[in-house]
Amino acid sequence: MLAVDSSPFTKFLLVRQRSEEICKPLEAEDHVVQPIVDVSPPKWHLGHTTWFFEAFILQPLKSDYQVYDDTYAFVFNSYYEGKGARIIRTNRGNLTRPTVDEVLDYRHYVDEQMAALLEADPGPELLKLLALGLNHEQQHQELLLYDIKYILGTNPLFPAYREFRSYELQTSPEMKWLDIDEGLHMIGHENEGFSFDNEHGRHQVFLHGARIADRLVTNGEYLQFMADGGYTNYRHWLSDGWDWVNANQVRAPFHWHITDEGWMNYSLNGGLLPVDMNAPVQHVNYFEADAFAKWAGYRLPTEFEWEVACRSHGDAGVGNFFESNYLQTMVVGQSGHQFYGDVWEWTSSAYLPYPYYKAPEGAVGEYNGKFMVNQMVLRGGSYATPGDHIRATYRNFFQPQHRWLFSGVRLAAYQ
Amino acid sequence: MLAVDSSPFTKFLLVRQRSEEICKPLEAEDHVVQPIVDVSPPKWHLGHTTWFFEAFILQPLKSDYQVYDDTYAFVFNSYYEGKGARIIRTNRGNLTRPTVDEVLDYRHYVDEQMAALLEADPGPELLKLLALGLNHEQQHQELLLYDIKYILGTNPLFPAYREFRSYELQTSPEMKWLDIDEGLHMIGHENEGFSFDNEHGRHQVFLHGARIADRLVTNGEYLQFMADGGYTNYRHWLSDGWDWVNANQVRAPFHWHITDEGWMNYSLNGGLLPVDMNAPVQHVNYFEADAFAKWAGYRLPTEFEWEVACRSHGDAGVGNFFESNYLQTMVVGQSGHQFYGDVWEWTSSAYLPYPYYKAPEGAVGEYNGKFMVNQMVLRGGSYATPGDHIRATYRNFFQPQHRWLFSGVRLAAYQ
Amino acid sequence: MLAVDSSPFTKFLLVRQRSEEICKPLEAEDHVVQPIVDVSPPKWHLGHTTWFFEAFILQPLKSDYQVYDDTYAFVFNSYYEGKGARIIRTNRGNLTRPTVDEVLDYRHYVDEQMAALLEADPGPELLKLLALGLNHEQQHQELLLYDIKYILGTNPLFPAYREFRSYELQTSPEMKWLDIDEGLHMIGHENEGFSFDNEHGRHQVFLHGARIADRLVTNGEYLQFMADGGYTNYRHWLSDGWDWVNANQVRAPFHWHITDEGWMNYSLNGGLLPVDMNAPVQHVNYFEADAFAKWAGYRLPTEFEWEVACRSHGDAGVGNFFESNYLQTMVVGQSGHQFYGDVWEWTSSAYLPYPYYKAPEGAVGEYNGKFMVNQMVLRGGSYATPGDHIRATYRNFFQPQHRWLFSGVRLAAYQ
Amino acid sequence: MLAVDSSPFTKFLLVRQRSEEICKPLEAEDHVVQPIVDVSPPKWHLGHTTWFFEAFILQPLKSDYQVYDDTYAFVFNSYYEGKGARIIRTNRGNLTRPTVDEVLDYRHYVDEQMAALLEADPGPELLKLLALGLNHEQQHQELLLYDIKYILGTNPLFPAYREFRSYELQTSPEMKWLDIDEGLHMIGHENEGFSFDNEHGRHQVFLHGARIADRLVTNGEYLQFMADGGYTNYRHWLSDGWDWVNANQVRAPFHWHITDEGWMNYSLNGGLLPVDMNAPVQHVNYFEADAFAKWAGYRLPTEFEWEVACRSHGDAGVGNFFESNYLQTMVVGQSGHQFYGDVWEWTSSAYLPYPYYKAPEGAVGEYNGKFMVNQMVLRGGSYATPGDHIRATYRNFFQPQHRWLFSGVRLAAYQ
Repeated sequence: MLAVDSSPFTKFLLVRQRSEEICKPLEAEDHVVQPIVDVSPPKWHLGHTTWFFEAFILQPLKSDYQVYDDTYAFVFNSYYEGKGARIIRTNRGNLTRPTVDEVLDYRHYVDEQMAALLEADPGPELLKLLALGLNHEQQHQELLLYDIKYILGTNPLFPAYREFRSYELQTSPEMKWLDIDEGLHMIGHENEGFSFDNEHGRHQVFLHGARIADRLVTNGEYLQFMADGGYTNYRHWLSDGWDWVNANQVRAPFHWHITDEGWMNYSLNGGLLPVDMNAPVQHVNYFEADAFAKWAGYRLPTEFEWEVACRSHGDAGVGNFFESNYLQTMVVGQSGHQFYGDVWEWTSSAYLPYPYYKAPEGAVGEYNGKFMVNQMVLRGGSYATPGDHIRATYRNFFQPQHRWLFSGVRLAAYQ
Repeated sequence: MLAVDSSPFTKFLLVRQRSEEICKPLEAEDHVVQPIVDVSPPKWHLGHTTWFFEAFILQPLKSDYQVYDDTYAFVFNSYYEGKGARIIRTNRGNLTRPTVDEVLDYRHYVDEQMAALLEADPGPELLKLLALGLNHEQQHQELLLYDIKYILGTNPLFPAYREFRSYELQTSPEMKWLDIDEGLHMIGHENEGFSFDNEHGRHQVFLHGARIADRLVTNGEYLQFMADGGYTNYRHWLSDGWDWVNANQVRAPFHWHITDEGWMNYSLNGGLLPVDMNAPVQHVNYFEADAFAKWAGYRLPTEFEWEVACRSHGDAGVGNFFESNYLQTMVVGQSGHQFYGDVWEWTSSAYLPYPYYKAPEGAVGEYNGKFMVNQMVLRGGSYATPGDHIRATYRNFFQPQHRWLFSGVRLAAYQ
Repeated sequence: MLAVDSSPFTKFLLVRQRSEEICKPLEAEDHVVQPIVDVSPPKWHLGHTTWFFEAFILQPLKSDYQVYDDTYAFVFNSYYEGKGARIIRTNRGNLTRPTVDEVLDYRHYVDEQMAALLEADPGPELLKLLALGLNHEQQHQELLLYDIKYILGTNPLFPAYREFRSYELQTSPEMKWLDIDEGLHMIGHENEGFSFDNEHGRHQVFLHGARIADRLVTNGEYLQFMADGGYTNYRHWLSDGWDWVNANQVRAPFHWHITDEGWMNYSLNGGLLPVDMNAPVQHVNYFEADAFAKWAGYRLPTEFEWEVACRSHGDAGVGNFFESNYLQTMVVGQSGHQFYGDVWEWTSSAYLPYPYYKAPEGAVGEYNGKFMVNQMVLRGGSYATPGDHIRATYRNFFQPQHRWLFSGVRLAAYQ
Repeated sequence: MLAVDSSPFTKFLLVRQRSEEICKPLEAEDHVVQPIVDVSPPKWHLGHTTWFFEAFILQPLKSDYQVYDDTYAFVFNSYYEGKGARIIRTNRGNLTRPTVDEVLDYRHYVDEQMAALLEADPGPELLKLLALGLNHEQQHQELLLYDIKYILGTNPLFPAYREFRSYELQTSPEMKWLDIDEGLHMIGHENEGFSFDNEHGRHQVFLHGARIADRLVTNGEYLQFMADGGYTNYRHWLSDGWDWVNANQVRAPFHWHITDEGWMNYSLNGGLLPVDMNAPVQHVNYFEADAFAKWAGYRLPTEFEWEVACRSHGDAGVGNFFESNYLQTMVVGQSGHQFYGDVWEWTSSAYLPYPYYKAPEGAVGEYNGKFMVNQMVLRGGSYATPGDHIRATYRNFFQPQHRWLFSGVRLAAYQ
C-alpha cells in the first residue's frame, strides 16, 4: 500500500506511475476500443486523468502554464459541462489519435508541470485539488481494470492480461451473522483526511436491529441459485430485472462461460479458468444481487447498516486490495470479514444526497451530485481498489443493470 | 366523497360506476389509442380493472364462475407473471376489439357476478380482496384521467374533455415555512383500514430539523424559473435530467403551449386555456421538480419529512380531490396546506421497501414490491384522486422522467 | 364494375361512395389505429382522400371555396411537401379526433362542393385533376382493405370483416408456360384514357426469349417450399431477405397461423379459415417471392416481360377484382391467365423512371417520381382493385420487405 | 500498374504486398476501430483477405494444410453463410486481438502456404480461385482506403495519412456532350480474362438516343448547387433522400468542413486542405448525385448508357488510378474522358442480375448475387482502384445512402 506519510509530491508520482503500469501488459490495440458505451478505451483513461490535472489545477493555478494541445480538452473531458464542449461519449472508441505514445507524452508533460508546481510551496487550495485529482485517478485505475477485463474477456481469443499468479485454494468458512444494534448511529465522513463530497453531511440514522453476513456470497452459493432455476423464475426478480434477464437471455454472471469442463470464468489473473467455487461471486448487477438475496430468504443491507457494521467489524486497511496483486476474488479469513476489498457490495440504498449535502461550486461540483438518481450504492472497495483509497464511509454508485464492475453480494436480515 | 360507512356492496357499485362515468364524455375513438407506451387506451383500463376482479376474486372464490371470454385474460392482464401470457404492453393501442360496448358488456357481466358473490355472506378473504380490487380501480381511474388528458391534449384539434367549469380566480398566498421537529418519528401505516403493502413495515426514522413549504409551487413561480433560463442552465439539473431536457428540447411543463396570447395550457377543465399563474404548477417530472428546487435555493422534501409534516399540518379528507370536480389545480386556502389533493408531490426519496417489508404471496404480491427500483416517491394525491383513497402514508411512485401525471412541487429546507 | 360511359359526376359519386361502403362493416374503434407505420387508420384514408380533392381541386379551382377546417390539412396531408406541414406519419394512429362521424361530415361537405363544381361546365384541367383524384381514391380503397385486414387479422380475437361468402372449391390446373418472343417491344402507356405519370415515356425494350407461367403460384405449392425448409436455408435468399427472415423469425406468409387443425389464414372473406391450397398464395414479400422462385428453379419476370405477356395473353377487364366481391384469392380458369386481379405480382424490376420520364410540375409531381429508389414493381392488380382501375401498363411499387399488401408470385424462365 | 504478363505467383506477391503497404503509414491504433458499421478496421481487412485464401483455396485444395488458428474463421469471415458462424458485423471494431503484428504473421503464413501451392503446377481450378482471391483483395484495398480516410478524417485532430504530394492545379475544361447512338447494344463481359459473375449474362439492350458528359462534375459546380439552396429544396430530392438530408442535417459532401478560410476537405493526400474547385466532386451518395443532376436539368446515365459510352470514348487503362499515387480526384485532360479512375460514377440503374445470370455453386456464389436488391450500380473505378482491376463492364454497387466511398457524378440527357 502507498505509505500514508508520503509527501504530496511522492504520492503524486506513485499514483501517476501506477496508471501506466496497469496498462503495461496491453498491446497498443487494446487501448483503443469502447465495446459498450460504459467501457472507455484505456488510452482515454490515461488522457482524461491527465486532462483533469491540466484543467482543474494547472490552468487555474499555474500562471505561465501552456496548454499541451488545444484539441485535447475536447477529446478528454468526460462530462464537465463547465469545461466546455466534448466528444460525445459513444464516440470515444472511434478515436485512434492521439496514439498511446502521444497520450504518454501528454502525461509526462503534465507530470513535469505538476512537479514544478508542487516543488514550489504548495498552498492549501492546491493540496486540496491535488488530493481530489489523485483520488480521481485512483478511481479511474479501478475503471481501467474493469474496462481491460471487458475488452480482453469478450474477445473470442480470450487473451490473458497476465500470467496466472497462483494462490492457495481454500474452503470458504460457513457464513455467520454479525449483529447491528437497534438505535441511532452516525453516518458519513468526519472530515479528517480526504473524502468525497457525497460522504459529507454527517448525520444520524435510526437503524432497526439487524444482522449482516460475516463474509461475501461465494461462487458456489451463487451456482446453487442458478441450479435452482434462479434466472427463470420471475418471483425472485424486480420487474426491471426480469425484463433485463429476458431481453439479454442472462443465465450466469458476466465473464462466466459454460464449457465441456464445466463453468469457466475469465479472470485478470490468468485468463479463462475454472470458477473457484469458494471465492466470492463477482460480476453480478443489482438485479442479480437482489434476486439472489430474495431466493436465499434474506435481503441486501442498506448502506447505513453496512457502514455501521463495517465500523464495528471491519478491519480498515486489511483486505484483498489492488496491492495484494491477486486481481481476483479470494477466500479470506475472518479478519475484517471482507468488508474491505475483494468486491464492491451492492446495498439496497439508492444513491441520494445526505442531509445538508450541497455540491461544491464550480466544475468540481459536477463530480458527484448530479448523478444522484437511478443509481444504487455499493460499499467496501474491491481487489482493484488501492488500499489507501477506501473508507467505511466511501460511497460508490452504479446503475442497477451494470455488472462489468467488480461487484458482489453480502446478505442481511432483520433480527 | 364516498361515504365511509357504505357497505362493501354499495362501495363496489359506486366505484365501478365512476370508471364508466369518467369515460362518458369520450367518443368511441378516444378509447382506443396508446400514443406513448405509458398511456393505456381508456377501454383497456375499463377492461383491465374488470379482469382484476375476475382473475383475483371470481375465479378463485366463486365455485361456479364461468369465465366471460377466454381471450380476455391475454388482452387485459397488465403485468402479472403469475397470471399467464399477456399482450405486450406496447401493443395495447393496436387492439380495436373488444370494442367499447363489448368491454362494457364484460364489465356488467362481472359486476353481476360480483354482486351475487357479495350478496351472499362475504368472508374476510373476499372483503380483503374486494378492498384491494376497489383501490386498484380507483388508481386506474386516476390513470384514466392522465391518459385521457394525454390523448386529447396532444391532438392538434385540442378537443375539450368537458365544458369549462368556472371557479373564482384567487391570488396565491405568500409561501411560509412549517417546522419539522428533529428526532425520531414513526413512519408507515398503522394497519387500521385499507392500505397497500408498500406502506407496511411501520418503523422509526430519525429526521434532522427541517422546514417545509405551507403550499405548493405555483405556475407563476415556475414561470420565473423558465424566464431565468432554468431549462438552459445545466447547473440546476441532474445529469440524466439535463440529457432529457436536451434530447427532447424541453422548455416548459407538459401541456403548456406558447401562443400569441402568451402561455396556454391544456386542461381537462375546458381545453386549451391561459395558464392560471396562481394555481399550482403541474405536469413537471422529478428532474424538473428537483431543478426548480435547486434554482430556488431549496430542495424537495424526503417522503419521511412529508409524512411527518402532513400528519402535523395536513387536514385529512380536505383538499381539491376528484369529488371537487374542478379537474385542475387550484389556489386553496391554508386549511390543510394542500398536503392532500391538487397534485402529487415529488419527494427526494427513491421508492424502496420499508424495513420488514415482504411482498405478499401469490400474484397479488406483484402489485408493488417488484417496482422498487429506479422510481421516486410522490405523496398526497391529486385533483383526480378520490378523497377516500388517499392517506398520509400513501406512497405513489413513478420513474423520474414521467410528467403526464398530475405532479407538482413542494419545497423544503433544513432549519 | 363501374360503367365506362358514366359521366364524370356519376363516377365521382360512385367512387366516393365505395370508400364509405368499404368501412361500413367496421366499428368506430377499428377506424383509429396504426399498428405499424405502413398501416394507416381507416378514418385517415377517408379524410386524406377528401383533403386531396380539397387541396388539389377545390382550393385552386373554386373561387369562393371555404376550407372546411384549417387544421385538417395538417392532419390529412400524407407526404406533399408542396402543401405545407403535416403530422408525422408515425403519429397518425394517435389521433382520435376528428372522429369517424366528423370525417364523414367533412367528406359530405367536400362532395357537395365538388358536385357544385362538376355540375357547372367542367373544363379539361378540372377533368384531368378529377381523374387523378378518383384514381387516387381507388388506390386508397385498396390500401384500406390491406389496412383493415392488418388491423382485424392481428387482433387476438380475429374478428371477421364480414361473413364468409362461399365459393366453389376447385383444383388448380397444372402450370404451363406462355412464350415471350425475343425482340423489341413497346413498353408504357399509349396516352389514351387515364394513366399515371410513371407509365409514361413509352419506349422500346429488347427482351430475350423467355417464358412465363400461365397462372399464379398456389398456397399448396408455397407450402412445399416451406416443408422443404425454404425459410431455413440461406441459399434461396437475398442477403437482406435472409436478415429479415432471421430478425423476424418468419416461417410462413403473413396472416398464416399454424393450429391443431393445420394451417389457417385470416381472410377478409370470413375471418380465420383453413388455407385453400389451390388458391394463389398471397401476403409474401419480394424476398419471399424471389426465394420461392429460386427454390423452384425459376425466377420472377421483369416488369417488361410481364407487360408484354399480359398484352398477348391477358384478358383486360376479366379477373378476380374488387367487384367480384370474393375478397380473397381464387382458382380461376385459364381465361386471361390471372394477369389481372387476384394478387399483385412481384416482378424482378426495380421501380425506376422510364426513358423521357419527367415528374409533372407542382405538388402533383410528388405523386410518383420521388419514390423511385429502393422499391420493386408489382403488376396486375388484386382482388381489392377496382376492375376499371387496372391496365397492362400499370406500375405498382412497394419496398421489398412489405407483405401486408395482396401480393403473390408468377414464375418465369428463359427459353 | 501491375504488368499484365506477370505470372500468377508474381501477381499474387505484388497484390498481397500492396495491402500491407497501404497500411504502412498507419499507427497500430488506427487498425482497430469501426466508427460506423460500414467501416471495417484495417487489420480486419488484412485478416479477412487472408482468410479468403485459406478458406477458399488452401483448405479445399492443399491436402496437408494446417489451419493457422481455429478461431480466425470466426473473426475474419465477412458474410459467407456457407463458411460457418462469424462475429456479428457491428462487433468487428471491438476486437483488439489478434493484434496487427499477429495478423501480419497470419498473412505471412498463408502467403508461404500459397507460394508452396503455386510453385507446384497449378491447375485451372486453382488459377481461377486465385484470380478471384486477388481481385477480392484488390477490392478490399480500395475499401481499406475508404475506411482509413473515414477513421482519420473524422478524428478531431485530422491526422494526415501522408504528406501532401503536390500536383499542378488546372482549370477544368468546359463540359461537352458525347453521343450515344439509338439502337441495340451488347452489354456484359465477353469472358476473356477475369471478370466477376455479376458482369456475366452478356445480352442486348435497346438504348434510346442519348448524350453523356465528357467529364465528371467538379467541386466548383457542386458548390453552385449548394449555394443555390440545393440541400434545402425538397423539389430536387427523392423522398428517401430528403428524409436522409433532414435526419442528418446534411449541407455538403462528406469530408467537407466550413472554416474561416472557406470550404476545406479532408484528403488522403495531405489531410485537411482547401477544396480544389476544379477537381471532380467526391463523397456524394446516390441521393445527392441524383438531386444535383435534377437541379442541373439533366439526369444520371443508366449503367448501360455508361458502358456503351465508355467502350466508345473511354481509354482503357488510362486514368487517375491507385498507381498514379495522387490519392485524390484530379482535373485530367480529355483523353479517356475520365471514364476510368478518379471516382466511381453513380448510375441510375438498380443493381440487378443480367439475363441468364446464375450465381455459382458453393460459398463463392455468395459473392455478388445475394446483394441484388436495394443497391445502385456505380461504374468506372476511382483513384483508389488498381489500374488492372477495372473494366468497361465492371459493376460496383452500394446502397444509395452511402458516401464514404470515392463516388462522384457524370451527367446525361436524352438527345
